[in-house]
Amino acid sequence: MKNRPVFYALLLSLFAVSSVWAQTASIQRVDPTNWWVGMKNPNLQLLVYGPQAGSMTYSIHYPGVKLVRTQKAENPDFVFLDLTISATTKPGRFTITGRTGRQTVSHPYELKARTRGPKAQGVSSADFIYLLMPDRFANGDPGNDAFPDLLDPKADRSVPFLRHGGDLQGIANHLDYLQELGVTALWMTPVLVNDETRKQEAPDRLQAGYHGYHFTDHYQVDRRFGGNDGYRTFARLLHQRGLKLVQDAVYNHVSDDHWLYKNQPFKDWFNQWPTYTGSSHKEQPLYDPYASAADRKRLLDGWFTPFLPDLNLLNPFLATYLIQHAIWCTELFALDAWRVDTYKYNDLSFLNRCNQALLTEFPNIHIFGESWVGNPVAQAFFVKNKIDQPFKSNQPGGLDFVLYDAMNASLREDFGWDTGVNRLYQSLTADGLYTDPQKLVTFLDNHDTDRFLSVIGEDLAKFKMGVTWLLTTRGIPSWYYGTEVLMKNTKNPSDAEVRRDFPGGFPGDRENKFTAQGRSSRENDAFNFVKKLANYRKNNPVLQSGKLMQYVPELGTYVYFRYDASKTVMVATNSTENEIELDMSRFSERTHGFSKARNVLTDEAISGLQAVKLPAKTAVVLELVR
Amino acid sequence: MKNRPVFYALLLSLFAVSSVWAQTASIQRVDPTNWWVGMKNPNLQLLVYGPQAGSMTYSIHYPGVKLVRTQKAENPDFVFLDLTISATTKPGRFTITGRTGRQTVSHPYELKARTRGPKAQGVSSADFIYLLMPDRFANGDPGNDAFPDLLDPKADRSVPFLRHGGDLQGIANHLDYLQELGVTALWMTPVLVNDETRKQEAPDRLQAGYHGYHFTDHYQVDRRFGGNDGYRTFARLLHQRGLKLVQDAVYNHVSDDHWLYKNQPFKDWFNQWPTYTGSSHKEQPLYDPYASAADRKRLLDGWFTPFLPDLNLLNPFLATYLIQHAIWCTELFALDAWRVDTYKYNDLSFLNRCNQALLTEFPNIHIFGESWVGNPVAQAFFVKNKIDQPFKSNQPGGLDFVLYDAMNASLREDFGWDTGVNRLYQSLTADGLYTDPQKLVTFLDNHDTDRFLSVIGEDLAKFKMGVTWLLTTRGIPSWYYGTEVLMKNTKNPSDAEVRRDFPGGFPGDRENKFTAQGRSSRENDAFNFVKKLANYRKNNPVLQSGKLMQYVPELGTYVYFRYDASKTVMVATNSTENEIELDMSRFSERTHGFSKARNVLTDEAISGLQAVKLPAKTAVVLELVR
Repeated sequence: MKNRPVFYALLLSLFAVSSVWAQTASIQRVDPTNWWVGMKNPNLQLLVYGPQAGSMTYSIHYPGVKLVRTQKAENPDFVFLDLTISATTKPGRFTITGRTGRQTVSHPYELKARTRGPKAQGVSSADFIYLLMPDRFANGDPGNDAFPDLLDPKADRSVPFLRHGGDLQGIANHLDYLQELGVTALWMTPVLVNDETRKQEAPDRLQAGYHGYHFTDHYQVDRRFGGNDGYRTFARLLHQRGLKLVQDAVYNHVSDDHWLYKNQPFKDWFNQWPTYTGSSHKEQPLYDPYASAADRKRLLDGWFTPFLPDLNLLNPFLATYLIQHAIWCTELFALDAWRVDTYKYNDLSFLNRCNQALLTEFPNIHIFGESWVGNPVAQAFFVKNKIDQPFKSNQPGGLDFVLYDAMNASLREDFGWDTGVNRLYQSLTADGLYTDPQKLVTFLDNHDTDRFLSVIGEDLAKFKMGVTWLLTTRGIPSWYYGTEVLMKNTKNPSDAEVRRDFPGGFPGDRENKFTAQGRSSRENDAFNFVKKLANYRKNNPVLQSGKLMQYVPELGTYVYFRYDASKTVMVATNSTENEIELDMSRFSERTHGFSKARNVLTDEAISGLQAVKLPAKTAVVLELVR
Repeated sequence: MKNRPVFYALLLSLFAVSSVWAQTASIQRVDPTNWWVGMKNPNLQLLVYGPQAGSMTYSIHYPGVKLVRTQKAENPDFVFLDLTISATTKPGRFTITGRTGRQTVSHPYELKARTRGPKAQGVSSADFIYLLMPDRFANGDPGNDAFPDLLDPKADRSVPFLRHGGDLQGIANHLDYLQELGVTALWMTPVLVNDETRKQEAPDRLQAGYHGYHFTDHYQVDRRFGGNDGYRTFARLLHQRGLKLVQDAVYNHVSDDHWLYKNQPFKDWFNQWPTYTGSSHKEQPLYDPYASAADRKRLLDGWFTPFLPDLNLLNPFLATYLIQHAIWCTELFALDAWRVDTYKYNDLSFLNRCNQALLTEFPNIHIFGESWVGNPVAQAFFVKNKIDQPFKSNQPGGLDFVLYDAMNASLREDFGWDTGVNRLYQSLTADGLYTDPQKLVTFLDNHDTDRFLSVIGEDLAKFKMGVTWLLTTRGIPSWYYGTEVLMKNTKNPSDAEVRRDFPGGFPGDRENKFTAQGRSSRENDAFNFVKKLANYRKNNPVLQSGKLMQYVPELGTYVYFRYDASKTVMVATNSTENEIELDMSRFSERTHGFSKARNVLTDEAISGLQAVKLPAKTAVVLELVR
């Protein structure tokens, strides 16, 4: 199916010159491109595309499969076939037959058996997710860097806004590195094809879809990363190594080079405005009891940028198309979890339907959306929560932007009544709003933020405090590639600055930060710190699923415990510039029964628990000993 | 009962010199000092106090009244009598008889008929509450300024920290003024007696209990304000004029000169610590799912100051004592509502019990506590809310510190993504957390904050914007005395600066801001602005109970509507320094069907609704016209 849209666009223009030929109907593609037997949901809606595909009458003959309805789109080139697939249907191939007058066309279709491999294991607080941008991590196959038949046929590492050639093979080559660090799951920015022209992302720059968020075909993984087959192989490799795979979804928009934007089944496939109207990016009208419909519409239906058409999720055919696509990816690529881009911009009932459809087929799957919001009330709205309000989200998790803000602010600010480590403390006190705060995905930085090291003034002591919090508090920690080797930068002048190539991942790189030898001592200090704590977390369930107890910060110190029946770990931060001797009597609820401790980071033994010395600007992690 | 404690303290010291006399038991007071027939709750627990009162056997003979239990306190001078009063009991007097050996003592007790006057009308969003400090508003009776038999026998207006002589009669003299302003309810800082020595409130000052928050006897209104009888008369006067009365409760602490601190029924009547321990003032441990018991204890049981002993609300006798006191005040003084001081410092189940007891006897009563917190999650925790969490408050309302912060910040800050009028907008978007946000009491300043005018840089344009928001948004607006005549100041150097005497309220005052003639033109401008809008609100239910719809702020403007079946009012703020012509098309949901408007503040007619001119730094209030 490679490159079909372009090929057929050519074919169509040939048809257009002949009125006789224009009458000829054909089937050029059917989405989903295949399906499976044994799904919980017996329904399948096929989008059939081809010139005048809507003018034909369809039939399917295969035991267990029933064509229950044929629905024409407004565009005569599209038709939707509603099938049911009974529980006893066997895997196999059949033919979709379309007839109009004397013409008969047929299209093969396959119902596969469901894979026996690991199925949607989910990610949990036992995991450590590594987020990377495949174009920017490592180039394992220079042969797939660019293709002349693609709309943007170039890779050029000298331009921050163009493709750099990274690919799945490059990542595969460095899985040892990730596993040494303690990573257990991989989240890549999207791998679906972005076959688009360069876009004017800012007045001063034309930018390629190197980051992957500009889909042009939902059923193709980008050839520049490895294509569908390469992605399946890569997923198999991850699972063989005990690593999990998270895919990045975008339901809000597609590229204006998407084949279904160039040729739309319905006039309302996309949200249209009389003149270009951007989203307000203001999520408050979704939960504000006093909101106007106009403000909700502006957020949801406004476009993200002028070249990212906004999908109208209220079109039922589109909604089904996207939901089936999510299931198709999960099954075909053996995904374990979904990260959902621009979550807050999507119709809420669509999101709940999509989440439920995934959870029905893959009960252990995890879904965590990106709702970039500034407070826990907003954040709770987009996940399963304990607030009795008209709309109830069923999203199991979400990216924890509230804790991200709090951890960064805690390190930037001096200690005060509501500032410094009080930010971190206070942000967690709102966890009662969430049904399960352990399912939130935590982070210090990501591909859309300033890099953590730059936020904290390149201060390694602060770096270690932040890492310690991330890896010892509740939630599912995630990590942005390169921060472990002290990659830095802010989004000024552009976000490409925080998406630089990982040094050593590309042919000709003079530095190789994948190896201890290639890293400076400061970089090794950072790397080893993350590695030490991530591996301790990996091997100690107390930091994964243990209960949390935190104490009101005092005098710039912030103390919390993770504890379960077998272990108690104390995390004590001294955010001040001076050593502090911590009076431990306040913590007797948790230290009762323990007499000494082991410093997890330094392996030092601590002989008494009456008072504990906290060096300046340090978070110590103590495993208590009876 | 006036002045009994001091009298009996004298008597007791006489007793102490004679061992024979010391054996003699007596009853010196019984609290509550009276009760009523016809209460919903048939139970009454009498605290009986007197030397060796605990050594006697008690009997009561009165039809319908049963003494079901006598419970001794740890202190032999106290005993608790549990009575039931049947529904058919007639009002009247009876005798409480105590016997020990050959001695019999008796004490009269009265069960009154319940008053027929207005009973706990509550306050609602139809009201406009005026908060004043009786010592600082007006002195109507110089004869009650000071009493030589009180522990602080002086009034001195030249010292900001001493009593100034204000009283209920002074307030009574100025009810015309309050009603002209549009006030419908009066909340005074506490009127219960503060018969205490001056306290070292700061290293540089000895301070009198002029503000009223240091109770020394729950059953006495301070003579310096008018005593119990004066307060009853005052309440009657308010009700005759259609004004409501709010009383200020303190359950967290009393003065260390309280008679029940000097002589405590139980060792645990107060929270005791090995060394002085102040409250953390941090409320988060109450709702934080990860909180420690130690942090909750520190907040709740820590003392407010060294001279304010912290009441132990877990002592069941104390809890009943305070709850009965609240009911006694409500019935005797015909209160309409309670404001509850330091709400967040009190045992939560006590608060719920107390609230429920009041609501049982007075179903229309309103209760709004002071929980000085910084975010809606915390604020919602202390009132009836929609969050499914282990503790559920039953408090109908609360002081809205979140909106207070937001309104002040909106006027201090420049407009930005999360700043300026976005603060106000965003704070209201969290209203889905509250069961009934209309029951929150809103304010621009109070006796514990910097005065509003000083916060906003004495800018009258900002003053009017703030007043407009307060009087047109949801909630029960309250007003701090003097702000309407532009009283200003910050709490630097002390909170006495924001509690200055109302000019014109005191004998010899050279200025009289109670009259238009006594006010400057700027002061009249402010006064008349509040008066105009408060009276418009008073006469237009749409601003009281109408629905609210608000729009996302854009370009420094913030627009909302109040609307009901009969009226629609648009409030449009331009917070910028330049005139803005507002495109009205965005608001068609609410302006549909209307063609023109009347400016409520200027009475100007506005002929078209396509575009509305908003002057710089102005909030316009438009009543839409069909």
